[in-house]
Amino acid sequence: MYARCLEELEDRGEAVVSSAQLASDCGVNAAQVRKDLAYFGEFGIRGVGYYIKDLSDDIKGILGLNREWRMAIIGVGNLGTSLLLYKDFLKKNYKIVAAFDVDLSGVVGKVSEKIGKPVEILHPDRLKEVAKQRKIDIAIIATPASEAQNVTDKIVAANIKGILNFTPAQIKVPRGYTVKNVYFTTILDNVAYLLQSKRK
Amino acid sequence: MYARCLEELEDRGEAVVSSAQLASDCGVNAAQVRKDLAYFGEFGIRGVGYYIKDLSDDIKGILGLNREWRMAIIGVGNLGTSLLLYKDFLKKNYKIVAAFDVDLSGVVGKVSEKIGKPVEILHPDRLKEVAKQRKIDIAIIATPASEAQNVTDKIVAANIKGILNFTPAQIKVPRGYTVKNVYFTTILDNVAYLLQSKRK
Repeated sequence: MYARCLEELEDRGEAVVSSAQLASDCGVNAAQVRKDLAYFGEFGIRGVGYYIKDLSDDIKGILGLNREWRMAIIGVGNLGTSLLLYKDFLKKNYKIVAAFDVDLSGVVGKVSEKIGKPVEILHPDRLKEVAKQRKIDIAIIATPASEAQNVTDKIVAANIKGILNFTPAQIKVPRGYTVKNVYFTTILDNVAYLLQSKRK
Repeated sequence: MYARCLEELEDRGEAVVSSAQLASDCGVNAAQVRKDLAYFGEFGIRGVGYYIKDLSDDIKGILGLNREWRMAIIGVGNLGTSLLLYKDFLKKNYKIVAAFDVDLSGVVGKVSEKIGKPVEILHPDRLKEVAKQRKIDIAIIATPASEAQNVTDKIVAANIKGILNFTPAQIKVPRGYTVKNVYFTTILDNVAYLLQSKRK
């Protein structure tokens, strides 16, 4: 959140930000900002605030955001296509370097048409070979839930250590792999809870 | 998380679960389970565990998951279509009751074909009228980011109190509205951070 706010301030050409301003931009209070940043060893300068560029670089370094992360999308249906089209990746340090689908014939033409340039879609059996060649760090699973574990096993065999799972399936990985699940229904549960508690 | 684990246990026909078993299913430790559930006034029965049905009902009541939530999708591109197709909604208490897009001619046929039945897609200008008729609780924004605030203003005018924003735009709403943002890049930042910290 701080990294994103600081990026916006940088884009606007600002050099310095007070904790009050940063708090307001981030939707928290100034005491929280000072506490959070102190945790990372950042204390700002009394009467001045924080140097935006320095603070932004420090936070990005801590979060691993100052390097390129190379990603593969597995499953090029509607969700996979929308991720391929997701323009916000371009602004950040995430790069989709490969796309995989079992249905090569049905998908390639449609996706290329939507994206406006030819898109190469590979069979998931080639994951291991391509992961090594293209140095893939993160695999995004956007297949049907029934395929999720099967695909996960291929990702593990390809030694891709980061997995973003968009299916509702609970996937199993060995130690040393990082899985982040994006369950739409869990996100909705959260909205429902907030609505429910406001009504009381 | 507990609600989901308990639902799976119910589906398997279990009646009682120990905190150790529940902890293992949820990927936390047993002390955490006891602490979390005690917070909701649930203490289980010594030597027995928790009655799954009762605990599940209680948690669902607290979270607002024991009622139907009626949703509208605004923006029926790839992401909107994938949400319309997302089968996991059917298992839960979320129901998509309307879909909106400015591009009526281009979208209806394609989406209907994918979904396998005729889908009625309405112009966003009709949001207020339809929200009242169909009792919409939650609006899902799946438009381009440039349209997000414009669409949000229509949602607010239609008095839909819950908003799930899938665009990277920061949207502004009056007090009393609940917004949950799903930024793919923020989710990826989280994966990147976890990968980065494991490498150190």
